[in-house]
Amino acid sequence: MSAPAVGAVPCDVRDLALAERGKRRIEWAFQSMSVLQGIRKHIIKAQPYANLRIAACLHITPEAANLLITLRDGGANLMLCAASPNSTHDDVAASIAKDYNIPVYGICGESQEVFDVHLRTVIASQPQLIIDDGCALTATLHEKHPEAMPEILGGTEESPSGVARMRAAAKEGLLGFPVVAVSEASTKQLFDNRCGTGQSTLDAITRTTGVLVAGLNVVVVGFGPCGRGIAARARGLGANLIICEVDPTRALDAIMDGYRVLAFAEAATLGDIFITVSGNKNVISREHFDKFKNGAILCNAGHSSVEIDIENLGLTALHRRQTRDFVEEFAMRDGRRLYLLGEGRLINLNATEGLPASVMDVSYATHALSAEYLIKCNGVLQKQVVPVPLEIDRQVARIKLESMGVKIDRLTVDQEQYLATWFQNA
Amino acid sequence: MSAPAVGAVPCDVRDLALAERGKRRIEWAFQSMSVLQGIRKHIIKAQPYANLRIAACLHITPEAANLLITLRDGGANLMLCAASPNSTHDDVAASIAKDYNIPVYGICGESQEVFDVHLRTVIASQPQLIIDDGCALTATLHEKHPEAMPEILGGTEESPSGVARMRAAAKEGLLGFPVVAVSEASTKQLFDNRCGTGQSTLDAITRTTGVLVAGLNVVVVGFGPCGRGIAARARGLGANLIICEVDPTRALDAIMDGYRVLAFAEAATLGDIFITVSGNKNVISREHFDKFKNGAILCNAGHSSVEIDIENLGLTALHRRQTRDFVEEFAMRDGRRLYLLGEGRLINLNATEGLPASVMDVSYATHALSAEYLIKCNGVLQKQVVPVPLEIDRQVARIKLESMGVKIDRLTVDQEQYLATWFQNA
Amino acid sequence: MSAPAVGAVPCDVRDLALAERGKRRIEWAFQSMSVLQGIRKHIIKAQPYANLRIAACLHITPEAANLLITLRDGGANLMLCAASPNSTHDDVAASIAKDYNIPVYGICGESQEVFDVHLRTVIASQPQLIIDDGCALTATLHEKHPEAMPEILGGTEESPSGVARMRAAAKEGLLGFPVVAVSEASTKQLFDNRCGTGQSTLDAITRTTGVLVAGLNVVVVGFGPCGRGIAARARGLGANLIICEVDPTRALDAIMDGYRVLAFAEAATLGDIFITVSGNKNVISREHFDKFKNGAILCNAGHSSVEIDIENLGLTALHRRQTRDFVEEFAMRDGRRLYLLGEGRLINLNATEGLPASVMDVSYATHALSAEYLIKCNGVLQKQVVPVPLEIDRQVARIKLESMGVKIDRLTVDQEQYLATWFQNA
Amino acid sequence: MSAPAVGAVPCDVRDLALAERGKRRIEWAFQSMSVLQGIRKHIIKAQPYANLRIAACLHITPEAANLLITLRDGGANLMLCAASPNSTHDDVAASIAKDYNIPVYGICGESQEVFDVHLRTVIASQPQLIIDDGCALTATLHEKHPEAMPEILGGTEESPSGVARMRAAAKEGLLGFPVVAVSEASTKQLFDNRCGTGQSTLDAITRTTGVLVAGLNVVVVGFGPCGRGIAARARGLGANLIICEVDPTRALDAIMDGYRVLAFAEAATLGDIFITVSGNKNVISREHFDKFKNGAILCNAGHSSVEIDIENLGLTALHRRQTRDFVEEFAMRDGRRLYLLGEGRLINLNATEGLPASVMDVSYATHALSAEYLIKCNGVLQKQVVPVPLEIDRQVARIKLESMGVKIDRLTVDQEQYLATWFQNA
Repeated sequence: MSAPAVGAVPCDVRDLALAERGKRRIEWAFQSMSVLQGIRKHIIKAQPYANLRIAACLHITPEAANLLITLRDGGANLMLCAASPNSTHDDVAASIAKDYNIPVYGICGESQEVFDVHLRTVIASQPQLIIDDGCALTATLHEKHPEAMPEILGGTEESPSGVARMRAAAKEGLLGFPVVAVSEASTKQLFDNRCGTGQSTLDAITRTTGVLVAGLNVVVVGFGPCGRGIAARARGLGANLIICEVDPTRALDAIMDGYRVLAFAEAATLGDIFITVSGNKNVISREHFDKFKNGAILCNAGHSSVEIDIENLGLTALHRRQTRDFVEEFAMRDGRRLYLLGEGRLINLNATEGLPASVMDVSYATHALSAEYLIKCNGVLQKQVVPVPLEIDRQVARIKLESMGVKIDRLTVDQEQYLATWFQNA
Repeated sequence: MSAPAVGAVPCDVRDLALAERGKRRIEWAFQSMSVLQGIRKHIIKAQPYANLRIAACLHITPEAANLLITLRDGGANLMLCAASPNSTHDDVAASIAKDYNIPVYGICGESQEVFDVHLRTVIASQPQLIIDDGCALTATLHEKHPEAMPEILGGTEESPSGVARMRAAAKEGLLGFPVVAVSEASTKQLFDNRCGTGQSTLDAITRTTGVLVAGLNVVVVGFGPCGRGIAARARGLGANLIICEVDPTRALDAIMDGYRVLAFAEAATLGDIFITVSGNKNVISREHFDKFKNGAILCNAGHSSVEIDIENLGLTALHRRQTRDFVEEFAMRDGRRLYLLGEGRLINLNATEGLPASVMDVSYATHALSAEYLIKCNGVLQKQVVPVPLEIDRQVARIKLESMGVKIDRLTVDQEQYLATWFQNA
Repeated sequence: MSAPAVGAVPCDVRDLALAERGKRRIEWAFQSMSVLQGIRKHIIKAQPYANLRIAACLHITPEAANLLITLRDGGANLMLCAASPNSTHDDVAASIAKDYNIPVYGICGESQEVFDVHLRTVIASQPQLIIDDGCALTATLHEKHPEAMPEILGGTEESPSGVARMRAAAKEGLLGFPVVAVSEASTKQLFDNRCGTGQSTLDAITRTTGVLVAGLNVVVVGFGPCGRGIAARARGLGANLIICEVDPTRALDAIMDGYRVLAFAEAATLGDIFITVSGNKNVISREHFDKFKNGAILCNAGHSSVEIDIENLGLTALHRRQTRDFVEEFAMRDGRRLYLLGEGRLINLNATEGLPASVMDVSYATHALSAEYLIKCNGVLQKQVVPVPLEIDRQVARIKLESMGVKIDRLTVDQEQYLATWFQNA
Repeated sequence: MSAPAVGAVPCDVRDLALAERGKRRIEWAFQSMSVLQGIRKHIIKAQPYANLRIAACLHITPEAANLLITLRDGGANLMLCAASPNSTHDDVAASIAKDYNIPVYGICGESQEVFDVHLRTVIASQPQLIIDDGCALTATLHEKHPEAMPEILGGTEESPSGVARMRAAAKEGLLGFPVVAVSEASTKQLFDNRCGTGQSTLDAITRTTGVLVAGLNVVVVGFGPCGRGIAARARGLGANLIICEVDPTRALDAIMDGYRVLAFAEAATLGDIFITVSGNKNVISREHFDKFKNGAILCNAGHSSVEIDIENLGLTALHRRQTRDFVEEFAMRDGRRLYLLGEGRLINLNATEGLPASVMDVSYATHALSAEYLIKCNGVLQKQVVPVPLEIDRQVARIKLESMGVKIDRLTVDQEQYLATWFQNA
């Protein structure tokens, strides 16, 4: 680890000289983070995190920086490490350390070893509250640092997969502290899955390929919240949508929205663009490669990079080559060419700047408020995965509405009473 | 009660001579009831209801008739009474009795007294299973016929308000048998609330008023499943939508779908058509009458007839008169005229033939399968409101898809394993 | 012809006693006719038709009545006959005569002979200006009453087919006076074809069949303005659309809007509902009857009743019967049943109350202003079909906007100059 | 001008070493240019341009390269210069010269002087046919090289502004040869204005700003074909649209599509994003700067860079700075910050790779076929701006459909006859 710059907080970042650009990006993002803006005044006044040591393990982006700044201004002693070795924005990391005096450990492209060192460094600071994205910090704590556990009053988790792991641990009685499942807040679902993934996935496809989406057959594999969002945006661009599903209720749902639903084997012969968001592996696999039209574009916006069986695609193809940034061409034996975007990883995160700041805003404000909740409920909550309190979800929505200048109604006393009793008179 | 016709089953209907028209309508509806069609073969073969006495308390419509016929063909001994005094289609009731030999008690416009007699007649038949819509039969059983309870192995309930009452009863330990909440099945939500209410509400408005919806400001009060469905359909007709909500999360949801969200006091000044689906009372009330534009149309597709404060509207107006079927004009003191549709009752049910048969099909097939489930689980289920088993929900969706010729994928063994374990590797 | 009622204007209507209901409907329609409302003040003040004899040959509906009243109030001496033997609303005809003192000749269901007598009666009044819908009056004048021609200073025509005939006549030098092609005004195209036909066609289908449109495959044959309108509305109801076209440019247009385009032979195997708006004959014909799915619904909203080859459908079917109002069932030899709506006539006009009043408003206001234009330009215009002057088209749009409370911008002087010269600097 | 590389065609490009990247991009674009692909076989066989000298003045992009290659393969002797000093893709220019042996003159960022030299070089080659985009070559020919005119049998023009200038010239009898107005082909309108501009404008906004469009108020100034396309795409992304227009017919059109229409002064107070496509100057001007919300984003996708009065915006602001690529911040005296994208130039062309290849394909195929048409009609056409022949427009559409695997119907002989005569029987 490089020595900290003289007079600066301890950190391990690419280059502090990048801080200026990072700062500009942090400030730009902040303008779209209206919920964080909205809770700042309260947090600064109430100092809910006063003197608390909070460790955050997040993708180091401009939006994450703004969460950290908010927590700091609410009294927290902070420490930040990267949630994965390749997701750090080095300019942002530099600015967090240099301009905001928050210790930060993350370098884009760091080795697994360095990544682990960063995690341990953060753990060594004896955190009392954990803000996690993907469970790396929480898992390391549980597996390797049982000594640090008693100090910790709770955690928050950003990702569905992190929550799933924690829930599995809790089921076996192994979770060491209560964790708030931020990933399941309804505002997060709305912004992140439906709106954020929808827009950014289509954005990534047009950026990387330059195709005109109107008039194309777009096949969406999986009609969960992300699939719905993507389908809506692709339709909005003039595509003809085909949905593939294994769940009959979701399939029916797609049909009643006017989409065509087909088994993938048939869809494979019709599609111009294929987007996987099924959350499962090999949904595009060996048996389908022969069916695709010449020029078909394959990409993934779902789970990890397993949805498309790339290994077998490579084995089946005569040869493969990079034709454009993020576009790999697979020349098939019969002359057809297939195009894989972004190596089958989450194309919406990899080929764009990531989710819009206003999307992350909703998540990160929920982290901040959930952290306050964990502190207030210290000792009361069980060592389980707990939902985001309805009141926080509503508060986030309310502040977002206010920031948009939207006014909504309130129930009258009469109406509240009526709601409480109507079924008795129904 | 009139004497049963010689040679016919006992019944109390308007006029058996209406049967021919009723039969034609029952058959017409059946053509759109593809799920009931799809489960018939199984039901006829399996005879799940063999020798069981089933009492149904339903709105007597062509679709209900087809449920009854299915149950009968599955071995049930049936008896049917009306779910409300004014909802019986007399021709259908006649045909149920005459053509299908099912005892039926319901006359459109019957007095409360006759309605009660009908309920008691059905109870007197000592039913073992209850199919209810609105809780009238179940409530009467609980309140007035405790002696009949021990025989009853369970019930199904169609309406949200019925389910709410039963849940309240169960909470106090008063529910006498398990009840399946058909109203909460996800296929029912999709078909009934989103698609059925959406289409039929706009249909009712255009039928009763003859307006061109394109270009109008349509205000939807309430953005629950029904409100969403209505908003989608009104937008599909070219309207500009304004949504009013008290729940900030729902309000935000509406905004992210591109709708305008306003407090009702402001929306009142802008709307051409107002549709209440809030589930609450007086959402259009005295303080708003002055704000409406001349010619504004008010209607309700939500809960009961309480959403619009009609009494006060009448008191505020200079005079009121019926201008067209289902359209009442209120002349205001300042010269404006407001139009109330269908006396503020559910306009989509009152001013059309009711929900499409394919909508009721999904509900009624769920009743049939839930009845089978109750019989199978006799003695196992607690005296609670229980959800429709996921498997039944999926089966309904699957049969509907098959009837549409839609094929969907199945998980491979590999994929099932992956789903079961992915969070461990996430 | 029955004798005119004592003290009333001469007329031939079903029954003057129907006038009360007719008057109520005329008034109701007027509320939606905001453009006619908007030009009334000017017309009453300017008296553009003062002492002019105007003969109108229109479908006798509440909206037509309001045009007549406007012309009368602008000084015209009027006479009205029906545009077809079966389209007269008898209550409206009665009210026009009784309540508004306008001579009217039309009885719903009148024989061709009576229809002709009515035309001749109107011609005998020596009209100076013709308002026509379908060319019956103009054609009769040209073919049988050359003596009446010199008096006539011009005409207006509502229907595309009428305009086509007149244009054909003009081409051969046979048109006796200038005719304004109201059917081609851009506001009329927008309101009538796209919005009016779109909404009313779907309305007619749901009324007559009760189907839930969501999730169905709807095949639209013809992607002209009407086809586009219908497709947009069906999509808005949740259908999956298939478009059939013979024109490649229009077909491509449909694809770029995200619709599926297929040859009809393939579409025939997929559709649940078929709507013809091609303007041609036998677009659904013998070779397709075998392809339809069981339960397919066929209807026409295009040209006359020739688009579906009903005669051959009848010959191919085993038997046919009326199952509901406007629904005829054709039982095919292989057991499938097909449903024809409204005998293949324009389903949107026949199975509903007709186009919304706000649609006809735009057309009829254009007739009124075009009549004024003809009078002003008397002697100047050639004996040709002439377009609606752009200024009238814009005036209609402007008044409609004003009636909706919509304000739009005006070009500044600078901007006008820039527009006039920009290409020189481009 | 640099000396041509030994063994290569004469050219003036940035660096022939860039050719490899250029070639890859040309090939990538070609895959989306299905109409050019579709006409190649015919052109290679028919050699319509055999031995003809064709001068093209186009933006030097991968798509333009593919047009040139097609013309070359059809027998033409070609020469290409840039249509503007800043639009040349240097890698593409290099490849055109090096890999395809076509003389090319264009360097991105060349001075006006060099630009003029390039034009003269091309003119010196004594072209017989002109392919122009923006009229620079044609205008130079007319103004400065009358001696070259007699050789020229005709031209084609890509841009509306070029066509407008040529039409103005023709009006005064000054146009020296017939010019086909490619910009007015209906397929070009569809692809370029509605689909291409729509998608690329929203693409540019999300790329440059990273905003989530869902839930924002997007103001589109101008509801011509481009405005419609942009509005449709913004709506498809979940925005709430506000349209501003000066033409009442277009304003009404927008309303009947469900959009809100407001005068700009009111829209200015509500919008989050403003997009000008009015074709006029100063539609956003001094009087509006005070009205915008803090954070409002301004951009132009219309005509030139005059639609937003940037000069006055700069004078009004306290200071301005570049905050991100293509994003300039204007800090207003009251603390609000406004953001101008891409210096008010066409954001969709400047901040993306340009229109999708499949859009340009349609235009360039029309140029190729129109050039063939000009040759065939040599001596027949008048020295006017002439429309693209309907048959070419249809052929382009037909080939595009075929490339998508879409089959459409053909009229039967019977139907053709019917169409020819129906009005006689109507």
